[in-house]
Amino acid sequence: MTVQTVGELGERALIERIRARIALPPWVIVGPGDDAAVLVPARGTLDVVTVDAVVEGVHFDWRFVTPEAAGYRALAVNLSDLAAMGAEPRAAVLSLALPDGAFVDTVDRFLDGFLGLAAQHRTALIGGNITRTTGPWVADVTALGSVRPRRILSRAGARPGDAVYVTGLPGSAAIGLKLLRAAASPDQAAVIQSNWPRTSERYLHPEPRVRAGLLLGRNRAASSCMDLSDGLADGLRQLATASGVGMSIDASALAVDDEVTRWHAQHGGDLLSTVFSGGDDYELLFTVRPSQRGRFRTVRQQLGDLPVTRIGVVTKGSDLVMTTADGPRPLPQGFEHYR
Amino acid sequence: MTVQTVGELGERALIERIRARIALPPWVIVGPGDDAAVLVPARGTLDVVTVDAVVEGVHFDWRFVTPEAAGYRALAVNLSDLAAMGAEPRAAVLSLALPDGAFVDTVDRFLDGFLGLAAQHRTALIGGNITRTTGPWVADVTALGSVRPRRILSRAGARPGDAVYVTGLPGSAAIGLKLLRAAASPDQAAVIQSNWPRTSERYLHPEPRVRAGLLLGRNRAASSCMDLSDGLADGLRQLATASGVGMSIDASALAVDDEVTRWHAQHGGDLLSTVFSGGDDYELLFTVRPSQRGRFRTVRQQLGDLPVTRIGVVTKGSDLVMTTADGPRPLPQGFEHYR
Repeated sequence: MTVQTVGELGERALIERIRARIALPPWVIVGPGDDAAVLVPARGTLDVVTVDAVVEGVHFDWRFVTPEAAGYRALAVNLSDLAAMGAEPRAAVLSLALPDGAFVDTVDRFLDGFLGLAAQHRTALIGGNITRTTGPWVADVTALGSVRPRRILSRAGARPGDAVYVTGLPGSAAIGLKLLRAAASPDQAAVIQSNWPRTSERYLHPEPRVRAGLLLGRNRAASSCMDLSDGLADGLRQLATASGVGMSIDASALAVDDEVTRWHAQHGGDLLSTVFSGGDDYELLFTVRPSQRGRFRTVRQQLGDLPVTRIGVVTKGSDLVMTTADGPRPLPQGFEHYR
Repeated sequence: MTVQTVGELGERALIERIRARIALPPWVIVGPGDDAAVLVPARGTLDVVTVDAVVEGVHFDWRFVTPEAAGYRALAVNLSDLAAMGAEPRAAVLSLALPDGAFVDTVDRFLDGFLGLAAQHRTALIGGNITRTTGPWVADVTALGSVRPRRILSRAGARPGDAVYVTGLPGSAAIGLKLLRAAASPDQAAVIQSNWPRTSERYLHPEPRVRAGLLLGRNRAASSCMDLSDGLADGLRQLATASGVGMSIDASALAVDDEVTRWHAQHGGDLLSTVFSGGDDYELLFTVRPSQRGRFRTVRQQLGDLPVTRIGVVTKGSDLVMTTADGPRPLPQGFEHYR
């Protein structure tokens, strides 16, 4: 293992090291190395822009997140935002604030994860910045995508009568994080991963639902959409607020991963809180108008084995009502920084 | 003064507070508040993208940089990069990593500086992110601009025989920083500012040379261009390397601010080192082909009283030669993080 630090290697050499790994598509006219990148816009589309950061000790912890997974997640959270708009990812810029003592090897592996996911989604790393910090790692990613004008998904389109859907199995990532947090070292984390493969993987490598977002947008099969980062309950609240509607949610409709059920059988605690309040899932939450049902059926077929669950219905007013097998209960709170 | 902290206010309320200050142009179809922003591209142009970060304790220090100036600089360094490409600024996203204990009032004033400069350059704040950090403030800005295909300025176009020019009075910001660094408090910094108004202002509020970059690009009056962030000597090296050329620089041609001369008269030290190695100037360094002289003259007239100095000529090979009133000497080194 290389024990050279970024302080020893220097900023410029580190940038060169990253640049050497990048292959650029022909629509990137000026790539990394000049003052700015220059791109040919995709024809007939709108530009979609999103930014998100991951901070060491806040969003990830080296004790149980490998550098590769940290790099993967830094991009994944942004691709998930593009997916929620129905946009196709095109490019990303990566801004890293690194302490002097960070290992070059760690940066290399961070880039392994970042560039691996970028390649999967044909996302070009077109530029970036590296700066010194006296604090923890901060990886800031701005992702750029494109979408045709009438295919934008937004949070604001839900209307009473629309059905509410969610992809995947919410709560999985939260259990993955709970389990991994108990690890005191990467070796312990590896043992946990082998015992709890799906939940830990969903936390470490959340698969951004890019294809689902694109299909919903292209087929105009959803009336509103957003991605979950701070939990399902938080997402429902935000979608309802943005659309000026209420919702009636049937908690018993939600499929739950066996590992989540197993964890709660072993540790007790409220399974519905995990499913509704757990963050980090990066699933899509969306609504479907009755008139879109046919198109939505087509999308569902194209999505293959990605679970897509109808969890409720949009209502008039602004109330959020949750019914469970044991009767109605208030919707749990979501996660918020600084709270 | 409000002493509420961002930890007390919460992430969402802080975002709402910032959103309430933003007015969006009609080409922003979806602004802050959804998963991503959606923009109508400028017709017939290419997209230009750049990212840069400022870190508390590395790029600025609260003892002598007001929150307003920190916010101004966070955007200015990015607009300067767009200027260097000949691009017109359009939009920016701002990602802030803030410690729990940061004052809301400080964030407000940071935004005063950021949004004030954004308004001057008609740059829309279209999105952002706020996250908690256990370390210093990190403000990451991605700026988006547009440029017509044949008007891009890059670092790679200089050819032997081209003249080398620089805007402004390099070295000013470095003296401003040296002076301000001696301040132990904002009050002391204010005294320094009143005694050394131009150099301290050039450090605190570097004016990005957006108009100069646009005019050089639109008139095709420059063969290469970049902005100075790590000093003139560093810029000359980078431009020469990117273009595969050498340069012969006449140090005595450079105009120097009276305050820089006064500082060196008081403190000694090598004035040429200040002028060539001092960072933070954000001036434009560019080359002009003999065939572009006429168009460049027009640009110069349009630039009014912005100093633009011919400092040398592009040569064959790769040697960088500096001549001074006392004969030839090696080009000083530039600034680099982690070194």
